[in-house]
Parts: sequence; structure tokens; C-alpha cells
Amino acid sequence: MSAADGQKIAMRGAGYYSANTVGAKYVIDKVGDLVVKAVAGMPRLADGQPFAVADFGAADGGTSMDMMRRLVGAVREREPNRAISITYTDLPHNDFSTLFRLSQGLLGTSTEVPLAETPGLYIFGSGTSFYRQILPDNSLSFGFSATAMHWISKRPCMIADHVQAVGATEAERAQFRAQGLRDWETILLARARELRSGGRLALANFCVDEEGRYLGHTTGVDMFDGFARHWRDLARAGRISETEYVNATFQQFYKTPDEFAAPFRDPASPVSQAGLRLENIFTMVTPCPYAEAFRVHGNAQTFARAYVPTLRSWSETVFANALDPSRPAADRSAIVDDLYSAYEADVARAPEGHRMDYVHCVTEIVKG
Amino acid sequence: MSAADGQKIAMRGAGYYSANTVGAKYVIDKVGDLVVKAVAGMPRLADGQPFAVADFGAADGGTSMDMMRRLVGAVREREPNRAISITYTDLPHNDFSTLFRLSQGLLGTSTEVPLAETPGLYIFGSGTSFYRQILPDNSLSFGFSATAMHWISKRPCMIADHVQAVGATEAERAQFRAQGLRDWETILLARARELRSGGRLALANFCVDEEGRYLGHTTGVDMFDGFARHWRDLARAGRISETEYVNATFQQFYKTPDEFAAPFRDPASPVSQAGLRLENIFTMVTPCPYAEAFRVHGNAQTFARAYVPTLRSWSETVFANALDPSRPAADRSAIVDDLYSAYEADVARAPEGHRMDYVHCVTEIVKG
Ligand SMILES: C[S@@+](CC[C@H](N)C(=O)[O-])C[C@H]1O[C@@H](n2cnc3c(N)ncnc32)[C@H](O)[C@@H]1O
Ligand SMILES: C[S@@+](CC[C@H](N)C(=O)[O-])C[C@H]1O[C@@H](n2cnc3c(N)ncnc32)[C@H](O)[C@@H]1O
Repeated sequence: MSAADGQKIAMRGAGYYSANTVGAKYVIDKVGDLVVKAVAGMPRLADGQPFAVADFGAADGGTSMDMMRRLVGAVREREPNRAISITYTDLPHNDFSTLFRLSQGLLGTSTEVPLAETPGLYIFGSGTSFYRQILPDNSLSFGFSATAMHWISKRPCMIADHVQAVGATEAERAQFRAQGLRDWETILLARARELRSGGRLALANFCVDEEGRYLGHTTGVDMFDGFARHWRDLARAGRISETEYVNATFQQFYKTPDEFAAPFRDPASPVSQAGLRLENIFTMVTPCPYAEAFRVHGNAQTFARAYVPTLRSWSETVFANALDPSRPAADRSAIVDDLYSAYEADVARAPEGHRMDYVHCVTEIVKG
Repeated sequence: MSAADGQKIAMRGAGYYSANTVGAKYVIDKVGDLVVKAVAGMPRLADGQPFAVADFGAADGGTSMDMMRRLVGAVREREPNRAISITYTDLPHNDFSTLFRLSQGLLGTSTEVPLAETPGLYIFGSGTSFYRQILPDNSLSFGFSATAMHWISKRPCMIADHVQAVGATEAERAQFRAQGLRDWETILLARARELRSGGRLALANFCVDEEGRYLGHTTGVDMFDGFARHWRDLARAGRISETEYVNATFQQFYKTPDEFAAPFRDPASPVSQAGLRLENIFTMVTPCPYAEAFRVHGNAQTFARAYVPTLRSWSETVFANALDPSRPAADRSAIVDDLYSAYEADVARAPEGHRMDYVHCVTEIVKG
């Protein structure tokens, strides 16, 4: 089965983490090119030591399955008998069963040999946040992560008149930035302990790029402004309370390349002192498949009906959780339905510029 | 939270693996005494090597949580800074999220420090059958398993006029025995590869003991005969077809202590050649908590109403899966309901002798 098939099936089984698969996989495959090159140049391990790989924030592992196949291939090309472990990490409530089933070929109908059938490859899950140390000291050869580390460890404040730090006031954004930078250091120091000497990280994270672009903001239209506007309309109409309006705040922060690089530029920083070195950093934009399809078919209705449910799949919990828990469940879903209906009508009316392009900053990091 | 609390909560969350917690935990705690003693005498590891523990067929890890705490304590008593890993293994569809949440104290209301908060302890899941190698060569220090390895890797045949090998014909039982012995060798050889030299296994498995006792057969009443009789009644009444009657066959085999010991007694066996040595073997009977409660309260209705749902929790899939899949779902559940209702009425009418005592064979195994 191709990872895309697996992912589609996983989604059906698991319910969410839905349709952005194509873009997410594209990003991972692109980073995979760097991974394969990097592996070829890594120091050999002592006999009997497994080459340990980790995927931080892996969800069900579907989007990284092909990349992992290539990584395993690159290790085995140099050392045909080297034992390899892959530890897929995510939050404790993640659907690890789907992950194990996908890797064992128990979902889907592919004829490809399942990843887990690779001789001498051992697959593990860890439901431990990447804000903690997940693997023993000096054990990790290659750490990978895609599109996960923009989730900060806590919300420093609610954003009063917007939903994401990109639209917050300067004072609010400063608090989110401070949290994001502290969290980035925490992530890097945990990884520094886990990595062997000579071990590497390849991380693709959402960012604000050199031109100020970020997820859903690569044209004059801003996706998060869209969320905020329609949410505000519900408040104005008295549909939601002021508190509910304010509480819809994404626990996220998009760093700039400079912010990603900062701990490495200061040789006295804890990250540099822990032995981590930034070898490569660049940004990349991955086009929104829905907007691209719209350029072909030109039907605004069709576009809106495919595009907005995709946004909904990863954003709706933020709005649902902002609502007063004492509201009946049916009331809460009706409000959330209304939010996305308004967004969809908006897109159908004026589709131009709506597109959820991914904007990533890729970092390659080495432990000295 | 005590493991018992955690387990109760996990059950509520997860839906099944239900009420036998007390007995299962009792067995594990008893084996824990041996584990703690054994750890004290194990060879020290080289610097930087983690002490790797695995729990094979762990379900949600609730019943072994206290034992793991003691095991971790025993390792740290000798080597306060030794890194420790625990890999919880089960089938791919196992509920690993509940496992991670339990170990992190995210279920329940206990004030005890969660196991996962132990410094230098790393917890993993593996949804890989214990019929395969799960961990890299020579990496495992201590393997543990309770009440799991009676599940054989396949059914060699259906049992025509019974549901479990204990009630099969001689010819059928011979096929189940052959499968069970092959499977035991497969399990041991996989563990032999995983274990370090000096590493150990402590396994508590269902068995047929020296007096011919086994699960639910420690008195004149036989639990599996009960299943078979009530299932046969449904066939006689035309409620289920002959094929459905035959297809209800537990994929299980209970070995005798001699069968557990056999591969170790032959120095030329693959298991002996792989370096495994049987250090200790004994059987134990763990009393059925429901039958014990009945001795106190004496109410047959109450007993039947608590006891039979417990049997149902782990046995009903065998009967549900035996039914023709073309039957409507409601029809299938009605049939299964009838089976257990008949069993319950039977127990309420004549409660004496009904008891699901556990009968285990404990083996302590060392890799030379
Ligand atoms: C958008 S998905 C990315 C999945 C996959 N890496 C990909 O690129 O297709 C983000 C994942 O990060 C996980 N995540 C968020 N915060 C995390 C944390 N603190 N620790 C581990 N995983 C986290 C989420 O649960 C989710 O599965
Ligand atoms: C009765 S539960 C025991 C749980 C726990 N060890 C205890 O003693 O409380 C048996 C467990 O064995 C698991 N199991 C059965 N066959 C297995 C296999 N081939 N590989 C791994 N686990 C298996 C089941 O999924 C189930 O979780």
C-alpha cells in the first residue's frame, strides 16, 4: 500500500487527522531527500548498537511511511545487518493501534511489503510529549519531526480579539513568542540528551517565513483572520458570549527562521553547550491541493465544499472547547457548524486568494 | 492511584478486559516477589546501557503497574542512576493510549507519583505479536508476561463438539497440543534472541496443573463444559447452525508443567541451544473472587449476576465470531445474550462448584 492509501484508510478508521495528507506527505518526502543524504555520511555505530530513529509527533505514521522506508534503505545500504528501531511518538491519546496496523500492512490492500516486515527492524510507540525526554541518553541516531512543534506546551494567555498569535496584539504575541522560544529550547535540550554523538535531527516546522508568509497566509487572504472574523460575527450576533469568543485561542506559535536559529547562533546558549549545531536551515512553501484543484476545475462551490471541511478537521476542537461546557452538546455542535458554514459561504462567494499553503522551516541539526 | 483503581478506570474507558483484575493482579504481584529477588542477583550492565524490561501481552498495563514499580525500585536500589526502559507489548489493536495515560497518571485521581514520572525511566508500546521478535538482539534484561501465552498463533482445526481443547477429542487435542508446543518454542526462541546474556524471563501462564486443574475447572464443575453445553443447546434448538456450533473454538491451549519444561530438559533442543535455562517452575491456583464473595454473602442470584458477565467479557467474541456474518447484528447479539442468560440461570439455580479459579504455571528462565 502506498502511504497515501494507508493514510486515507487510517483517517476513515480514526476519524480525524484528515485530508491534508497530500501536502503533509509532500513535505516529508522532500525532507526525506535530505535524510537519505545525511544518513550516508553518518559515523558508523559500534557493533550490536541499533540505529535508532524517532518520529516526533507522528500521528498514525502514515505520511512518513515512505520516508521511513527510504531511511531504512539508506542505513542498510551501508550496513546490511544493522538493527534499526523506529519509535513513533505523539501525545498519549494518539491512535497507536492504527500506527501499528498501518506499519504491519493490516489496513489497506497494498501489495507492497509492510514496513514492519523488514528484517531486523523494530517498531515502537511512545505516548510521551516531545516536551519531555522520550528515549534514553545517547541512544538516538536520527530524530525526525514534521508539522508538529508549532503546538506550544501551554497558552500563556488568551488572545482577546483573534484566534492565533499571528493576529494577536503586540503584547499578546510577545507572550506567545516567549513561550514558543522557551518551548523550542526545551525540545532541543531533550533531543540533545537523547542523541548519540554524531546523531542528527531533521525537523520540518510551520513558520513565518522571510516574506512574512505562514499557513493559510500566502496571498492577500488570511485563513486565521477568516476564523477570527466569523467567530467574532457569532459573538456580535449574541450567539456566543464574550468569554467564549476570547477563549478560542490556538495553542500555537509560528517561529521565524531567525527564531529557530537563535539558540544555535549563541555559543553560550544551553543548546549550543549541549552540543547541538545547526547545519542547514531553509523555508519552503507547499501549495494547497484544494486551491490548486480549483485552478483546474474553477467551481467555487466545489472548492469551498472541499476546502473548508479540511480546515475544520484540525481547527474545530479549538472552537468547540472555547464554548461553555454547560451548553448542551447539540447547541455546541450547532454553533461550530454555523462557524464553518459562514466560512464556506464566504469562500464560495469570493474564492480568490483562499488557500492553505503550508509554510515550513526545515532545520538539520547535528550533535557534536 | 493504585493499579487496581487505574485498572477500573481503564476498563471504563476501554470497554473490555474487565472484572478479573483482582485475580490477575494477585498473580502478577506474586510473580513480582520472584522478580524483585531475581533482579538483585543479576549481572551489572555496562555503563550507558539501559536496563530493558518488557511486558508481553500487557493489555493496558494496569495489572502490572505495581509490579513494575517494584522492579524499577529493585534495579535502582543497586544502581540509582541506571536508565530503565519498559516496553509494553500486545497485539496491534490493543489500547495503547490507555496504557500511556495510566502510566502518566492521566486517568484516575490518585496522589501516587505516576510510574512515567520516574526519572530516567522510558516507556514504550509495541503492537507486535509475541510470536515475533519485538526487541533488538541482546537488548532485553527482564521479560515478563502474565496470562497471555495460552493464546496460540492459529487454530489447527475447529473442535467439533466442544469449545476448548480441554474438552476436545484426543485427535483434536493432539493437534492443539502440537500447535501449542510449536508456539511455545517460537516464543522462547524469539525471547532468546532479544535477551542479553544473563537476562531473565518470569512468565505466569495458564496451564493444566499436576492435578489436572485448569481455569474454571478446580471442582466438579467445568466452566468450558458449561460454555459447550449451553452452545450445544442453541444448536439443538435450531437457533444456530451446525457450522456455527462447530466454529466456536477458543484459539487456546493450556500446557502442563511438563510441556512447559520439555524444551529445557533436552540439551539438544533449539531452546537449550539458544542458551535458555529453566531455573524454576511451579504451579499456583488463584481463587475466583466471585466465588469467594458468594461464600460470604450466600446469594446465588447475586453471584450469578456478577460471575457470568465476567466470563462473558473475555469469551463472547469467540461465540459472536462463530456466527454467520450474514446474520443481522441484532440477531447475533440476541443469540450471544441467550447463551449467557442460560449460563447465568444455570449458575443461579445450582451455584455450587462454579468458580473461575486461575491455574498458572510460573517459569523463571535465564539466558546463559
Ligand atoms: C499535523 S500532525 C502531523 C503528523 C505528521 N507528523 C505529519 O506531518 O503528517 C501534528 C501532530 O503533533 C502531535 N503533537 C502536538 N503536540 C505534541 C506534543 N507536545 N508531543 C508530541 N506530539 C504532539 C499531534 O498530536 C499531532 O498528531
Ligand atoms: C488476559 S490478558 C492479560 C493482561 C495482563 N498481562 C494481565 O495479566 O492482567 C491477555 C492479553 O494477551 C494479549 N495477547 C494475546 N495474544 C497475543 C500475542 N500473540 N501477542 C501479544 N499479545 C497477545 C491479549 O491481547 C490480551 O491483552
